[in-house]
Amino acid sequence: MEALSAADLQLVLDEIAQAMREAPDRGTQACYIPELARVAPDQFGIALCLADGQIVQAGDATTAFSIQSISKVFTLAIALGRLGDQLWARVGREPSGAAFNSIVSLEHDKGIPRNPFVNAGAIAVTDAILQGLQPREVLADLLRFLRMAAEDDDIHINKAVAASELANAHRNLALAEFMAAHGNLRNPSALTLGTYCHQCAVEMSCVQLARAGRFLAGLPGAPRLVSPARIRRINALMLTCGHYDASGDFAYRVGLPGKSGVGGGILAIAPGRASIAVWSPGLNAQGNSKLGSEAMERLARATGWSVFG
Amino acid sequence: MEALSAADLQLVLDEIAQAMREAPDRGTQACYIPELARVAPDQFGIALCLADGQIVQAGDATTAFSIQSISKVFTLAIALGRLGDQLWARVGREPSGAAFNSIVSLEHDKGIPRNPFVNAGAIAVTDAILQGLQPREVLADLLRFLRMAAEDDDIHINKAVAASELANAHRNLALAEFMAAHGNLRNPSALTLGTYCHQCAVEMSCVQLARAGRFLAGLPGAPRLVSPARIRRINALMLTCGHYDASGDFAYRVGLPGKSGVGGGILAIAPGRASIAVWSPGLNAQGNSKLGSEAMERLARATGWSVFG
Amino acid sequence: MEALSAADLQLVLDEIAQAMREAPDRGTQACYIPELARVAPDQFGIALCLADGQIVQAGDATTAFSIQSISKVFTLAIALGRLGDQLWARVGREPSGAAFNSIVSLEHDKGIPRNPFVNAGAIAVTDAILQGLQPREVLADLLRFLRMAAEDDDIHINKAVAASELANAHRNLALAEFMAAHGNLRNPSALTLGTYCHQCAVEMSCVQLARAGRFLAGLPGAPRLVSPARIRRINALMLTCGHYDASGDFAYRVGLPGKSGVGGGILAIAPGRASIAVWSPGLNAQGNSKLGSEAMERLARATGWSVFG
Amino acid sequence: MEALSAADLQLVLDEIAQAMREAPDRGTQACYIPELARVAPDQFGIALCLADGQIVQAGDATTAFSIQSISKVFTLAIALGRLGDQLWARVGREPSGAAFNSIVSLEHDKGIPRNPFVNAGAIAVTDAILQGLQPREVLADLLRFLRMAAEDDDIHINKAVAASELANAHRNLALAEFMAAHGNLRNPSALTLGTYCHQCAVEMSCVQLARAGRFLAGLPGAPRLVSPARIRRINALMLTCGHYDASGDFAYRVGLPGKSGVGGGILAIAPGRASIAVWSPGLNAQGNSKLGSEAMERLARATGWSVFG
Repeated sequence: MEALSAADLQLVLDEIAQAMREAPDRGTQACYIPELARVAPDQFGIALCLADGQIVQAGDATTAFSIQSISKVFTLAIALGRLGDQLWARVGREPSGAAFNSIVSLEHDKGIPRNPFVNAGAIAVTDAILQGLQPREVLADLLRFLRMAAEDDDIHINKAVAASELANAHRNLALAEFMAAHGNLRNPSALTLGTYCHQCAVEMSCVQLARAGRFLAGLPGAPRLVSPARIRRINALMLTCGHYDASGDFAYRVGLPGKSGVGGGILAIAPGRASIAVWSPGLNAQGNSKLGSEAMERLARATGWSVFG
Repeated sequence: MEALSAADLQLVLDEIAQAMREAPDRGTQACYIPELARVAPDQFGIALCLADGQIVQAGDATTAFSIQSISKVFTLAIALGRLGDQLWARVGREPSGAAFNSIVSLEHDKGIPRNPFVNAGAIAVTDAILQGLQPREVLADLLRFLRMAAEDDDIHINKAVAASELANAHRNLALAEFMAAHGNLRNPSALTLGTYCHQCAVEMSCVQLARAGRFLAGLPGAPRLVSPARIRRINALMLTCGHYDASGDFAYRVGLPGKSGVGGGILAIAPGRASIAVWSPGLNAQGNSKLGSEAMERLARATGWSVFG
Repeated sequence: MEALSAADLQLVLDEIAQAMREAPDRGTQACYIPELARVAPDQFGIALCLADGQIVQAGDATTAFSIQSISKVFTLAIALGRLGDQLWARVGREPSGAAFNSIVSLEHDKGIPRNPFVNAGAIAVTDAILQGLQPREVLADLLRFLRMAAEDDDIHINKAVAASELANAHRNLALAEFMAAHGNLRNPSALTLGTYCHQCAVEMSCVQLARAGRFLAGLPGAPRLVSPARIRRINALMLTCGHYDASGDFAYRVGLPGKSGVGGGILAIAPGRASIAVWSPGLNAQGNSKLGSEAMERLARATGWSVFG
Repeated sequence: MEALSAADLQLVLDEIAQAMREAPDRGTQACYIPELARVAPDQFGIALCLADGQIVQAGDATTAFSIQSISKVFTLAIALGRLGDQLWARVGREPSGAAFNSIVSLEHDKGIPRNPFVNAGAIAVTDAILQGLQPREVLADLLRFLRMAAEDDDIHINKAVAASELANAHRNLALAEFMAAHGNLRNPSALTLGTYCHQCAVEMSCVQLARAGRFLAGLPGAPRLVSPARIRRINALMLTCGHYDASGDFAYRVGLPGKSGVGGGILAIAPGRASIAVWSPGLNAQGNSKLGSEAMERLARATGWSVFG
């Protein structure tokens, strides 16, 4: 397939945004975090960063939203930078075959989460980078990382969202305490969960998120935050585990490494070509953005950017 | 990374074959099929088909071996050609998070296997293409497909291996009957299993297998057996599900769609670049070729062919 | 509580039969065996054998019905007589916490069923007594045992029901083949399943069944078929495992060892006091006779026969 | 079997105590609660309360030990007295088929524990009686209940043990938070767990425990704390669920309702005949007192007190 120009892509994004604006079924917003349930449901945004540094966008691409689990990609990058392969003693690298918050496989695997993108795994990663530090230091590091990656200082944590999540964190606390029972939590669960809920409450727009993902796409102008070998591995994890028990379906339909968040955002990586962010608050049955997933599928079809040929 | 010439790649393969020859731990051969347990353990072969049609090989690359589960890729291609997306009513597209022969998720999912590459899923695929046909017709179709793909008529089924498998097929029979109990088997289980065991008993060399995989890599000279959209999807399934509960690890280490067989073979696809086959009979704990996995990892590192950047 | 006379008990049974006749919701008949689905749904029978040998009955107590899984109690008695405690190498003695036909715990426990009353366990028991014999010999032994126990030669196998079951035995075949894969089936699964389906197709009336259960109640006049120590153990297994995943509820409500069958029958044992049989074809959600369970609860309340004080 | 006199039973207990004193393998003490791991391992005590009010004892029958999970029987009695059958909306009545601290079935059953004797179920029961009260009130109620039941005021909570448990309660916290996530915990988990750990830390001797169990055996002179109908039901639950995943085995070997604790104690009930307490700190693989279980089996054999005939 011929390379598409930024102008071509603008047409593609406009068409997608138009189709999404008219979508009859927009999914259902996450209801367990009251702050997220309040977001206006009829929003949709999409943004691309291309290899030449250009940004193409459509819809509500500059509206900030709660990145939620997309943050797990960035904390994983930080944790690998700090601990290297030692991290894999505490978390696996296999798809879980179960829902994002399942505790079943955690019992089967004696407290070792299946991968860094299910909730238990992300909590273990946060716990790992928290060691020896204060929560505010870890969160400052994360914001610094995100701002460097996006080259944009206007990235913040929404404390009301963080508080709302922390007040509804029973299931995540269960996961944390279960790991603690197996010696796979090093900090008090309240401290780790507090940090985790704040990390999930980072707010970014599609444009900011697409810019922050450039380093994973290995784009020429992107800040060099992680080695190429590690980038490949993070992308591999996103592809196999980034959409919970719909990861296989996303790989099948879109064919790009991606990570979704319950706030309705998705970050996807077309290696060497583009970093892509999409957002729409309503979720499908697997907890991934309904319109976001559809938009990604349309984009992949239009561009031929699938990593699978 | 600069494109590697065939001569460069020959050096890479020679080095890999040399290292594999000296490997102290070669894994353990599958013991539940007596015919496979008898294969000489110290063999290793590797072969690549490149975009320009050249073949590069090293080691025992022309020795035929039992392709076993690698056959699942080809029967999937045939089934998609015949049934199209209707196939997905009978089998899912998600990694299973469990061993290749697990029956647990089958009960959870009411007789619908997680994906076409776990045993239950492959049996369902074979059952689907068997409908209205005789086993020998299905097997003739498969051989025809493989011979066309490899452009080599010297591809056969080892009947002694098939018989040996059929005599030890209790667990696969359990999977088949369990699906039958949920209405997800249309032929008598003996008929479907008989076909399945013969399909697994196809023998090919690394060179033949690499040639047969060209259509999945979308190489210019390859026979056009499947549409590009479908190729992407088969590759996606191989990447997320091709190595059972080590699929995540293979994606992480190698970064290519691949499918392993208990006979010690692995087929991997570098889209647009190469089709790769490797073989060594000893298996690791997850049932994938031990030296084959290591060789793939070395090759991916040397070539930079990972789909992940 | 004072001992109840046969005349008192007749009044109790008449009252129960009357209430059951008027019950608005009679449950749902098993539909996976066509022959059982054809039984007239409005039938109800109950019969007691007392310590003094008297029989008290009400309703359709002399109508023969398919005893189905109640046969598992008698084959267990035969198997223990033949193999003694060696039987426990092939089947456990714990409640399963899962449905009667679940295969999940079988994978967890490497082919050893949880207890002799889940389907897998009963199949293993039948397989154990089949060893070295022909199916017709095993079935002749079972009929001989039942006729001796009931002191009634008019007990037979309904071959149409057996054939109907065998034609719908996919799930049981899956259990058998799964056990075979773990070396816990010694005969061809077709042979064991054929025997099992015939054993389930024995037909008895409530009066016959109550008489056949006298030896388990240790009633003075009962044939001595099993030692007192073994009787206690069979009763213990009935109490903890006799009603699948409603065993705890039956113990809670009725407080007697009991075994249900999908034909709508229940055999219950009041040690030293009575052997009780009840029958009504409609089943509740757990696969136990709906009115039969209710009748047993009423009887236990009226008589104070609970083993629990 | 003829009724045994107190003198006969004294001989039986002496013989059992002698055999237990010489037992070569005494099991392994619970190690996750440091305070319990420190108890001298070579202790063994046994005590019976008979229908005529006599107490028979042998060994270390007046040494106080940590009753641990045996407390669950008493809090269940209190909860049923306070909430009646409404309690069953929050906890089931079926054997779990899994270990005492498993979280798997809790996910399957959406936060409703299988029965009141697995840890999750007991935590739910404690949470139920805590509603509207302070922990110290609940604990005062429990001590009052126990002292009335045993007619002995010298029953206390060991606060060091309670603190030790609370410091190692990660897994129980996981269970509590998981239930909270499903709306099946009404108090803050720290409050419920604090109460639960103190309830488990009650200390009683075999004599005290046997006396406290008289009401469950329905002995003539026992305090009337619970209705006969409810007693039967508590006994039924003890028989089916009282020994976790060894409940079936205890029913098979001993044939009496019983409840074990990780401190090495077991309470068993011979309805109408006796209340029995035994204690020895070493545990078997299922977490029940090794010598205690053996002693119960010997006692049941010697007395013929099995409820199963």
